[in-house]
Amino acid sequence: MGYTGKYLDVDLSTGKVKVNPVPWDWLRDFLGGKGLGARILLDELPPKLDPLSPDNLLILLTGPLTGTTMPSSGRWTIVVKSPHTGTFNDSHIGGNFGAKLKKAGFDFVIIRGKAPKPVYLHIFDGGAEIKDATDLWGKRIFEVDDILHDRYKDASVGAIGPAGENLVTFACISFDKGRQSGRGGTGTVMGSKNLKALVVQGTGGINYHDADGFRQLVAKLNQKLRKHPVRMKRHKIGTLNCIWEGIDGGVLPFYNYGGKWDARIIELVPQVLIEKGMLQGKRGCYSCPFVCTNYTRIPKGEYAGKAYEVPEYEPTALFGCNLGIFSYEDIVYAHTLCNDLGVDAISMANITGFAMECYERGLISSEIPLNWGNGDAVIEFIKSVAYKRGIGELFAGGVKRAAAQIGKGSEKFAIHVKGLEIAGVDPRASWGMALAFATADRGGCHQRAWTPRAELYGKVDKHSPEQLAHFVRYVQDERAAAYSLVVCDFMPISEDEFAELITKDTGFEIEADSYVKLGERIWNLVRIFNLREGFTRKDDTLPARFFEEHIEDGPAKGEIIPRDKFDKMLDIYYEIRGWNKEGIPTESKLKELGLSDLSRELR
Amino acid sequence: MGYTGKYLDVDLSTGKVKVNPVPWDWLRDFLGGKGLGARILLDELPPKLDPLSPDNLLILLTGPLTGTTMPSSGRWTIVVKSPHTGTFNDSHIGGNFGAKLKKAGFDFVIIRGKAPKPVYLHIFDGGAEIKDATDLWGKRIFEVDDILHDRYKDASVGAIGPAGENLVTFACISFDKGRQSGRGGTGTVMGSKNLKALVVQGTGGINYHDADGFRQLVAKLNQKLRKHPVRMKRHKIGTLNCIWEGIDGGVLPFYNYGGKWDARIIELVPQVLIEKGMLQGKRGCYSCPFVCTNYTRIPKGEYAGKAYEVPEYEPTALFGCNLGIFSYEDIVYAHTLCNDLGVDAISMANITGFAMECYERGLISSEIPLNWGNGDAVIEFIKSVAYKRGIGELFAGGVKRAAAQIGKGSEKFAIHVKGLEIAGVDPRASWGMALAFATADRGGCHQRAWTPRAELYGKVDKHSPEQLAHFVRYVQDERAAAYSLVVCDFMPISEDEFAELITKDTGFEIEADSYVKLGERIWNLVRIFNLREGFTRKDDTLPARFFEEHIEDGPAKGEIIPRDKFDKMLDIYYEIRGWNKEGIPTESKLKELGLSDLSRELR
Repeated sequence: MGYTGKYLDVDLSTGKVKVNPVPWDWLRDFLGGKGLGARILLDELPPKLDPLSPDNLLILLTGPLTGTTMPSSGRWTIVVKSPHTGTFNDSHIGGNFGAKLKKAGFDFVIIRGKAPKPVYLHIFDGGAEIKDATDLWGKRIFEVDDILHDRYKDASVGAIGPAGENLVTFACISFDKGRQSGRGGTGTVMGSKNLKALVVQGTGGINYHDADGFRQLVAKLNQKLRKHPVRMKRHKIGTLNCIWEGIDGGVLPFYNYGGKWDARIIELVPQVLIEKGMLQGKRGCYSCPFVCTNYTRIPKGEYAGKAYEVPEYEPTALFGCNLGIFSYEDIVYAHTLCNDLGVDAISMANITGFAMECYERGLISSEIPLNWGNGDAVIEFIKSVAYKRGIGELFAGGVKRAAAQIGKGSEKFAIHVKGLEIAGVDPRASWGMALAFATADRGGCHQRAWTPRAELYGKVDKHSPEQLAHFVRYVQDERAAAYSLVVCDFMPISEDEFAELITKDTGFEIEADSYVKLGERIWNLVRIFNLREGFTRKDDTLPARFFEEHIEDGPAKGEIIPRDKFDKMLDIYYEIRGWNKEGIPTESKLKELGLSDLSRELR
Repeated sequence: MGYTGKYLDVDLSTGKVKVNPVPWDWLRDFLGGKGLGARILLDELPPKLDPLSPDNLLILLTGPLTGTTMPSSGRWTIVVKSPHTGTFNDSHIGGNFGAKLKKAGFDFVIIRGKAPKPVYLHIFDGGAEIKDATDLWGKRIFEVDDILHDRYKDASVGAIGPAGENLVTFACISFDKGRQSGRGGTGTVMGSKNLKALVVQGTGGINYHDADGFRQLVAKLNQKLRKHPVRMKRHKIGTLNCIWEGIDGGVLPFYNYGGKWDARIIELVPQVLIEKGMLQGKRGCYSCPFVCTNYTRIPKGEYAGKAYEVPEYEPTALFGCNLGIFSYEDIVYAHTLCNDLGVDAISMANITGFAMECYERGLISSEIPLNWGNGDAVIEFIKSVAYKRGIGELFAGGVKRAAAQIGKGSEKFAIHVKGLEIAGVDPRASWGMALAFATADRGGCHQRAWTPRAELYGKVDKHSPEQLAHFVRYVQDERAAAYSLVVCDFMPISEDEFAELITKDTGFEIEADSYVKLGERIWNLVRIFNLREGFTRKDDTLPARFFEEHIEDGPAKGEIIPRDKFDKMLDIYYEIRGWNKEGIPTESKLKELGLSDLSRELR
């Protein structure tokens, strides 16, 4: 079981809400989350659909493990065609929303159409209702969150802010204030549908194929995880611990990935947040033994004195050293503002770096003084983007669109892949990330394969195209399976253990090999979606800066990505994927993966 | 120059103090610190001398860089024949004493004989005086320190405590309360000489061979070091950062190196010290840009409310997880008590682990309940050892002597090499440390070659005897040179840079290769000293526990050191050292190193 066997189909245009049964073969072949969302999106969307069209889908998906007693079963997924990039986009969220959705009785929810006026969707045990949101429209997220939590006890609430309403292409959805569906504009899709918020109340139980076996396995896993090194590293200070690896490996971005190094980075080592008395405690997702999210007092601005679930590593690196800002005070303020106005903090911070470089080079004029290190300017800039006013208008579509408008060579340092701003790693210092960013399905994403640790610890030779191609490919497949379960990036659970969890949960007989193979099937499915949209080998690349400018200083001084090495890495990667030179899956690969029916999409 | 060209020769038996010129060939061949001390000790001591004899020497040595403007030039050295192990023993100290000694006009001080009654030595510009210390005898170190600092303004003060007076074989000397000459019983030698304290006032300048060149090089180095990753990692929380590597690599010792793993280790991750509000600030050595020493408020016991320069990594691991104690409150109290009573905190903590295991196994009875995790018992035990009363008497000679008395198989888990308790690393999880401990000149010391980081980061294959033997050998030589300069373990300064520093400082033409070669000469010199004392291949080994019991749990679960692998590693190590199968340098190696005259010592 592991599933409810039902899903909600919500048409905002007609106002109809249906409860449908889930075809079991979808579950067996794609599990849930990313995989299932990809299958639905590929089947339902016509090629080249405008992502802001009412016909785009907003799919909320759990996986077979969501809401179970498994450690960290709070994860769940939103799938859309991205209005930011035009690619497939899966976004994975922690917290409690997913578990409640499952407990309300649904494996997933398809939201289609466009409401004639602002609405929110209230999901409850066995059904859902579309509700008027006229009074909520125009409000920031935290205020909406308070109102809806007041209205619905024990609910989990997700909402968009001004950015989503204004169709900023990288608008996020914030759940319960602290958990974001961040990347790729899922909030924009909500905005385009006049859907202000999602509310879920769910009180049902979870069914297991083999409840006793599952319980025993979970007990064993919990025992392992409680004493696992990853817990030691994550629990006390969360993802900020990655700052150490950034320092060791020289992968931190400085000054819009400008290849610099600034000694003031010492002010961003994780314990400074504690030193300054800002960290107030920790928050965890549903059923998580790691409890990694920092809960931090914001010392300045409109949130002064209140505490929120910030900061994470990526926005710290990107609002910090990448902007020449070395103050946690400025970083957590900017980070929180993004969550409240509803913009993806990673894209927003990266875009700010691009805007600052353009401003410092004299390529743009701006009413906000966008000088490196100006924390106050960052705050104003975020607002100008979210509300699309003044200089913000130019950047509300991300760096790719902005660079196309600005020209003057700015494309070279617009740091994105396929339109998605890359995360807080300089790929010159991590060739593995160069390949991972270039081939990530939703654009410059760091979560499809994270290589800096493996490179730093010598698990792969950081200058070997062969080793890196194999490593990235394997992790992408393994993650694609994990994102279909759905489980957190940080859970050190092995493929064997996942396979066993699935079997005991759902009854699907699965083993470690076929688990990773399932991930490969999903990765190829998504590739086909993107190919159909027109993305080809030429898009599996990086901004010219990384091929043409050496890192000037710091632990990775002198590093660059030679184009020939990159091309070789990509060639090898395609080859071991069973893709042709253009990055298109071969017929035999599709057949091997049971996806032969999709070869029609490639014609 | 870099040298004063003078040394003090102090005979406590006769009360005579002489100022002598230093032979320049000693300086050119052995630089200072460890190298020079080894040469003097080998020349002056008769073989097999009782280390507690008045004829043992206490040699205080600077190096050519001590007291200069070079980053971290505060380091200096004490050399004795160890009363704890019977080996050569060099102990390196930070702080300001060494710089003041150089500025008083002396490259080193030889202290010989035994005072008829308690004395202290007061060194000042150009001379020294032996002073009565009857009023200081019997006092703890911090009290003596206060008295002498009050008596001598701007002085640096080192003193022994009850442990040194009572000839506990691993007594330390604490300088200015916070800097220890810790390992191997240098404080015991002071005690045996009725020498309670050392006071130095020095106000002179430092001469340079090429002052302009030196200044320029130092400016360049400071620029490099200010932004170096090691500074980022060391400055904020000092050596405690090694806890992370201990967790990652599974090298932390638990329950007297019992191969366990305890999830409560999360309470000893570095930032907990900040979380708890205990860290008050940082203290640095003379001219150091890293400033790594933690300055911590002690929350309990007789030091409650006062702050001292604790904790460091090794005592944290050894008073912490190695005793089943997961509270920084207990650890910093015990650590501080060691510094005040004058016992080496590393040996003391390791001995406590051994005593606890003996107690828990019922091999000893004790008036102190030495159960795992009993922080109060640890405090009582330290006192009982320092004052040699009750159960403490049995352990006042270290674990080797205690195990010989206790018998009943306890030798297997008496965790020492050549009588020196090994530091806070489980060598089963780091075969490099197995070799490093086994071959370290002063016994189970972690500073002669530190391998866990290189193993964790894949710089060496952690299961390759060949790679590890080469790595350990190289680092030992490089460190031997560095300990002769004398410079800190943590300064990321290259061999090239050291060579250039020496040349500009002293005028000795030296290059990176010959710098490391010089280290090799010193390593061999010390080896000859130890061979003459009767140490042979059979002593280059580890406690049986590491060969016979697997690590039961944690990141290094299943690791053990197979004896054949260890023997192979040692064979390779001897071979690449140019030593025969018994670990004795060959004639040709001695000739190559310019040490042919010493072959007589090996007959």
